[in-house]
Amino acid sequence: MKDNSFAAGRSLLKSRWPELSTIKTAKANGLPSPPLQDPASQGEGLIRLPIMPGGMASEITLIEAMAARQSRRHFPGGELSLDELSFLLWATQGVRKVSSQFSLRSVPSGGARHPLETYLFIKAVHGLDPGLYRYLPLDHALTLLRKANDPDGEEKELDEALLKHNFGAAVTFLWAGAPERGEWSYAFEAHRLMLIDAGHVCQNLYLACEAIGCGTCAVGAYDQEKCDRFLGLDGKERFLMYAAPVGKRA
Amino acid sequence: MKDNSFAAGRSLLKSRWPELSTIKTAKANGLPSPPLQDPASQGEGLIRLPIMPGGMASEITLIEAMAARQSRRHFPGGELSLDELSFLLWATQGVRKVSSQFSLRSVPSGGARHPLETYLFIKAVHGLDPGLYRYLPLDHALTLLRKANDPDGEEKELDEALLKHNFGAAVTFLWAGAPERGEWSYAFEAHRLMLIDAGHVCQNLYLACEAIGCGTCAVGAYDQEKCDRFLGLDGKERFLMYAAPVGKRA
Repeated sequence: MKDNSFAAGRSLLKSRWPELSTIKTAKANGLPSPPLQDPASQGEGLIRLPIMPGGMASEITLIEAMAARQSRRHFPGGELSLDELSFLLWATQGVRKVSSQFSLRSVPSGGARHPLETYLFIKAVHGLDPGLYRYLPLDHALTLLRKANDPDGEEKELDEALLKHNFGAAVTFLWAGAPERGEWSYAFEAHRLMLIDAGHVCQNLYLACEAIGCGTCAVGAYDQEKCDRFLGLDGKERFLMYAAPVGKRA
Repeated sequence: MKDNSFAAGRSLLKSRWPELSTIKTAKANGLPSPPLQDPASQGEGLIRLPIMPGGMASEITLIEAMAARQSRRHFPGGELSLDELSFLLWATQGVRKVSSQFSLRSVPSGGARHPLETYLFIKAVHGLDPGLYRYLPLDHALTLLRKANDPDGEEKELDEALLKHNFGAAVTFLWAGAPERGEWSYAFEAHRLMLIDAGHVCQNLYLACEAIGCGTCAVGAYDQEKCDRFLGLDGKERFLMYAAPVGKRA
């Protein structure tokens, strides 16, 4: 039985950082950092993405993008190009520096832990079969998790899991938690930071969408079990934390 | 005694949205929306800020800002102008539309609840006395909470509360939770969304800093009690959730 009181919920929002000195984290115990990204599917080659961001032609200024940003739920414009998808992935999780223990990306993350994995349900991206993919930030590549035998049916299933918030997206970003990456160094303080990180990532997605004629409307209201099942996640080590359907505005 | 297990922490990251249909939220009970912003200090006039963003000269592109963004901890450049501070506040919480029950801002927020209040410890902004202020998004104005009689001493106090992460900032952004705004419509599901919102806001701050020669390094590691005391918050209805010291890069 979960404690649904507001006091219980609010307590999760608060820092107990000084208490960290009373325990020994995995990092303090000398354990190696968990892998910085989940591995590619076995048997499937990587789908390399165009190098970003040099190739993007968008000259939208930061201020224009911030002023134009809004939640968009109508996507009449059809498919995205691979360049456009690549740009959105670079903006949200692109790696600019990497070591054995951490990576620096287009977004900040407490302790550079980056405890999220980016799943993509692709319905309409030029050159890619509809299906479920995962982004590999260290390779700037996609790995195919499963082709959609029935794209319309799978989209409907996803839409149900997102409580009717998929809006006929061309591609749906689905961020799953990889909690062990944060727990390694921050133990019980890691979880609060993971949600903040999801916000960092999604804000960049919103802005990047404005640059390429796309739109998005982030989804925090979803059916956890249905989403995790759709993504093939166990709900314990990996579970959906936030989602954002993306499509062309016109 | 808090449950510090990883399983307990992870459970907070998950959606239990379908359970909302089993309770009656304050909104469903017909209660009015809580106020969209906290009131100004009594007895002090509002400090109106320059209208944004038209007045900003920055032509940095979105892609340049995203590519340049990094956490910055050295602020040798002295004070910010009021225009610059105004721009950072517009980018993080600026209002573009308002009704009696919600506001739309430069960042998204689940259900447009915007359950954060922006506190500022100002050390070096041209034309403003050092001290503690709060931003009023609906007025695009500041309210002075207290002048700093001993700015260096107060900065030191804040730096201790932020566990030495204030980096001699010209102005420190301190986001406090206003949980009743989200709970009104989303009850126990509100808290998860509040942390995500803090991430949205801070990502825009990072990018906006790049546009005006500033930098920031967000702080999730802090002493809750000391911060709340510094800000004059009760730790129950209002409490610090995230912070970001900002200064000029050169």
